[in-house]
Amino acid sequence: MTMLRDPSRKYNPFPQVDLADRQWPSRIITAPPRWLSTDLRDGNQAIVDPMDSAKKRRFFELLVEIGVKEIEVGFPSAGATEFDFIRGLVDSGTIPQDVVVQVLTQSRADLIRTSFDSLDGVHAAVVHMYNAVSPAWRDIVFRMSQQEVRQIAVDGAKIMRDEAAARPRTDWRFQYSPETFSTAELDFSIEVCEAVMDVLQPTAERPIIINLPATVEAATPNIYADQIEYFCRNLPNRDAAIISLHTHNDRGTGVAAAELGLMAGADRVEGCLFGNGERTGNCCLVTVALNLYTQGIDPGLDFSDIDRVIETVEYCNELPVHQRHPYGGELVFTAFSGSHQDAIKKGFAARETQNDEKWRVPYLPIDPADLGRNYEAVIRVNSQSGKGGFAWVLEQDQGLKLPKAMQADFAPHVQRMADDLGRELNAADIWQAFRDAYYVQTTDKHFQLVDYEESRGADGTRLFAGTIEVAGQAQRVSGRGNGLISSVVATLRDAFGVELEVQDYSEHALSKGSDARAAAYLECTGADGRKIWGCGIDEDIATASVRAVLSAANSALRDGDNPA
Amino acid sequence: MTMLRDPSRKYNPFPQVDLADRQWPSRIITAPPRWLSTDLRDGNQAIVDPMDSAKKRRFFELLVEIGVKEIEVGFPSAGATEFDFIRGLVDSGTIPQDVVVQVLTQSRADLIRTSFDSLDGVHAAVVHMYNAVSPAWRDIVFRMSQQEVRQIAVDGAKIMRDEAAARPRTDWRFQYSPETFSTAELDFSIEVCEAVMDVLQPTAERPIIINLPATVEAATPNIYADQIEYFCRNLPNRDAAIISLHTHNDRGTGVAAAELGLMAGADRVEGCLFGNGERTGNCCLVTVALNLYTQGIDPGLDFSDIDRVIETVEYCNELPVHQRHPYGGELVFTAFSGSHQDAIKKGFAARETQNDEKWRVPYLPIDPADLGRNYEAVIRVNSQSGKGGFAWVLEQDQGLKLPKAMQADFAPHVQRMADDLGRELNAADIWQAFRDAYYVQTTDKHFQLVDYEESRGADGTRLFAGTIEVAGQAQRVSGRGNGLISSVVATLRDAFGVELEVQDYSEHALSKGSDARAAAYLECTGADGRKIWGCGIDEDIATASVRAVLSAANSALRDGDNPA
Repeated sequence: MTMLRDPSRKYNPFPQVDLADRQWPSRIITAPPRWLSTDLRDGNQAIVDPMDSAKKRRFFELLVEIGVKEIEVGFPSAGATEFDFIRGLVDSGTIPQDVVVQVLTQSRADLIRTSFDSLDGVHAAVVHMYNAVSPAWRDIVFRMSQQEVRQIAVDGAKIMRDEAAARPRTDWRFQYSPETFSTAELDFSIEVCEAVMDVLQPTAERPIIINLPATVEAATPNIYADQIEYFCRNLPNRDAAIISLHTHNDRGTGVAAAELGLMAGADRVEGCLFGNGERTGNCCLVTVALNLYTQGIDPGLDFSDIDRVIETVEYCNELPVHQRHPYGGELVFTAFSGSHQDAIKKGFAARETQNDEKWRVPYLPIDPADLGRNYEAVIRVNSQSGKGGFAWVLEQDQGLKLPKAMQADFAPHVQRMADDLGRELNAADIWQAFRDAYYVQTTDKHFQLVDYEESRGADGTRLFAGTIEVAGQAQRVSGRGNGLISSVVATLRDAFGVELEVQDYSEHALSKGSDARAAAYLECTGADGRKIWGCGIDEDIATASVRAVLSAANSALRDGDNPA
Repeated sequence: MTMLRDPSRKYNPFPQVDLADRQWPSRIITAPPRWLSTDLRDGNQAIVDPMDSAKKRRFFELLVEIGVKEIEVGFPSAGATEFDFIRGLVDSGTIPQDVVVQVLTQSRADLIRTSFDSLDGVHAAVVHMYNAVSPAWRDIVFRMSQQEVRQIAVDGAKIMRDEAAARPRTDWRFQYSPETFSTAELDFSIEVCEAVMDVLQPTAERPIIINLPATVEAATPNIYADQIEYFCRNLPNRDAAIISLHTHNDRGTGVAAAELGLMAGADRVEGCLFGNGERTGNCCLVTVALNLYTQGIDPGLDFSDIDRVIETVEYCNELPVHQRHPYGGELVFTAFSGSHQDAIKKGFAARETQNDEKWRVPYLPIDPADLGRNYEAVIRVNSQSGKGGFAWVLEQDQGLKLPKAMQADFAPHVQRMADDLGRELNAADIWQAFRDAYYVQTTDKHFQLVDYEESRGADGTRLFAGTIEVAGQAQRVSGRGNGLISSVVATLRDAFGVELEVQDYSEHALSKGSDARAAAYLECTGADGRKIWGCGIDEDIATASVRAVLSAANSALRDGDNPA
């Protein structure tokens, strides 16, 4: 392989903006911007199979539900299909009173008029006119001078002004985009916008929207922020304009450009859900909104059921949301690595015990529950996972809280299963591995409890008397000890020669309520000094501990202790 | 749906860095950084099914081919599989002399020793030690004081120093990561790094690598840049350290953070191809490298056959590269919209006619050919596409250069087909639509040329005499005119009553060389004044124009002209 070894022959470095006293790097975003979704326009024009009317309407309804108040619904002069869809939205009364729809048009008299036609009668609408201003477009595409390009914008603005005046039923608002802004001369963009504003006479009360597109992302995002700050500082009558950002993602920094652009003084962000749009996509509105959310700022957009949003967007665009897409991707809250899993578990545990409202869980920048996600997918187990992973899964799935030392005992069983299967282990796999390792809720074991009774002797000792199946044969056995556990241990020693010395014991309810089952964990040493673990689960807490002793006995047997 | 309406109760804004005189926003990147791929470590620990040894080796070989000189090959103390793979790389002599492999280890004596064991004997290696330093990790995960955390790093550094000294066959280099750097107190990170450097005694000639992870991306990327600049300015003995960036993408700005971090003084970038890695992924090395490339800087990494890179990465990770992933995605060079297609066509045309080496094609920030992509996928046609799209496809696919007015005539045919099929049109579809519209290379037409001869009269007029099948019946017909075309027109009028008045005519070779075929285009008006177009294609330029006349006659017939 050989790539051009001297790309400087072919590509120019992007020029810097002369703005030594820039202020934006010292600012932070403290309030949400206005949001404009262009999913139905810039997004739709970039997908392999454009949405039909039914899909467009479904997407529109989703946007309304999320809380988007400004929606670009299409390019009505492009053809009858676009026009009819938009007209249908208006005529069917689908557009809520607090939502403003927007349409895009080039600066040509017939196209502008068609655009007004498409929305005439709606309560409020934005007509969004653009023309390209940058040298590449002037020289290559249109072969026009700056003067000619400026005149196109002015002529269009006059038609917009007159069309709006002639159609008083609708509250018409204006948007102008000096297209290809990010690759144009800043002073020329300002000049053209000023000329458009001279025609439309916006005020602080009735501002124009000036939208500044990074039509193609061509520089690091700080340059776009410099451009926005320069523009905001030098636009005459700045108060009469809503400054809007429209970034694309060609360099993978479209979200960053929007964020830095907001710090630089902009008021509004245009984009698409999950960054659909031309080429590498538009700015992802979900990411920018949830980035604000994680800084304690209510974005005004509701992604509390993000999976439903994803489902609709994937259906309409016929494009997947990538597994690693911020906030939405299938894997973004998932930890496979043992150390990550361990830290996350501790973070969740700390939240339960501390009385701190603040979210502070390692590796999770947002609470998955805030997006309607549960914690099941957070920790997933494969061969890269340590003890933290399966312990979490057992706790989430079965309610079992294994003692730390028992986790270490169980770990090789899980590792072996992951290596054998060569794939991720799901909760059922891990539960199976646990049942196999400790002979829990399985009939495939040497010692099996059938029934038992317990009685207290006059000397305070306990007598265990029970029926135990040994390799399928029921036997009646008994033994005595200081307590229930020791009496079962004595029974196993006396009847079957199994030597177990109990080191530690713990038990907990598996769930809340009176019908809860209990899990008992028993740490023993065997005849040869090895650590042996047992676990018993039962509705009755005493029976759970009896089962735990038999579990340990079964483990001891498997691991090489030979009963006499 | 309801998302937390006051997220400020749960989430804190990220604190700013006290760096009023920051320099990075005025800087640009002028040289490529050192690249470290952690695909085999941070990438591998984040995929559902971790790579087996064969996949790991295949990925390693790909990285070497691309030109990556520093490769993190795993976490050898995590288990036998990891260790054996790394040891195998060394023992099999797979590692080129100009490639340095790196392994990650926690700061624990046994783990560090295992890490040295895994690489002992290789020509050069980096042992990369980390421990977490941020308050969340200190408080929640480890319950340790700053002093204890610092001591862990110092203790590990001493073991690294001693292990390296005891194994003189390998050129050992050291890397230290104050893990969770981006969410830690900057001065404490500097303190710990300084303490590690005090032990390892790096020099400008033998520097340590200090890697500064945004373990979880928690702020806008300018904050990370501030952190990097602050760190670089305040680290004692800065010259003895390579400052390395390791960003994650939780807020969708991992690439931006790396770029701004380079502007802030860093020397090296860690990441993965196409941004694989924990949760939302690591920094995408492909994007950062090609971003540099488009600024005229040779990144030192070779993506001239990017499809092959994608194929291997997708195979190994079992994760797709998204359709909109910068540079690599299937759709990133694709334009469906008519105005985009038109501008791109003009950009390509300008490149052919102008003698400018510089790349300046609208909507394409990089020449797809530089990445081994052809132009076929650049312009794709669906119902959103205007005339530019199909005209481009016909030219690319069939060599036809339709006159602009004929494009307008053909456009409704394409639009109808796109609407009927409800999907994107491929080149074969468009060619079919063209053949149907103009009766080119099809037998399903009213007038069909069988053969003809042409002769010149004494008065300079031309006589056309030919056999034409009319609705399947061969007829011998003739006519006279000033030239070949007018003689055929006369023939059709005299023999069949078809009225055509020729308005314009053009012809071009379909390809270069002596055996090239020619295409002729004929613009006529019919009896009712309507515009009628014809096209003829033939090895012989004269025959092509005869066919064009018959094509127009067939069109006239279909469109309602009734021959007498």
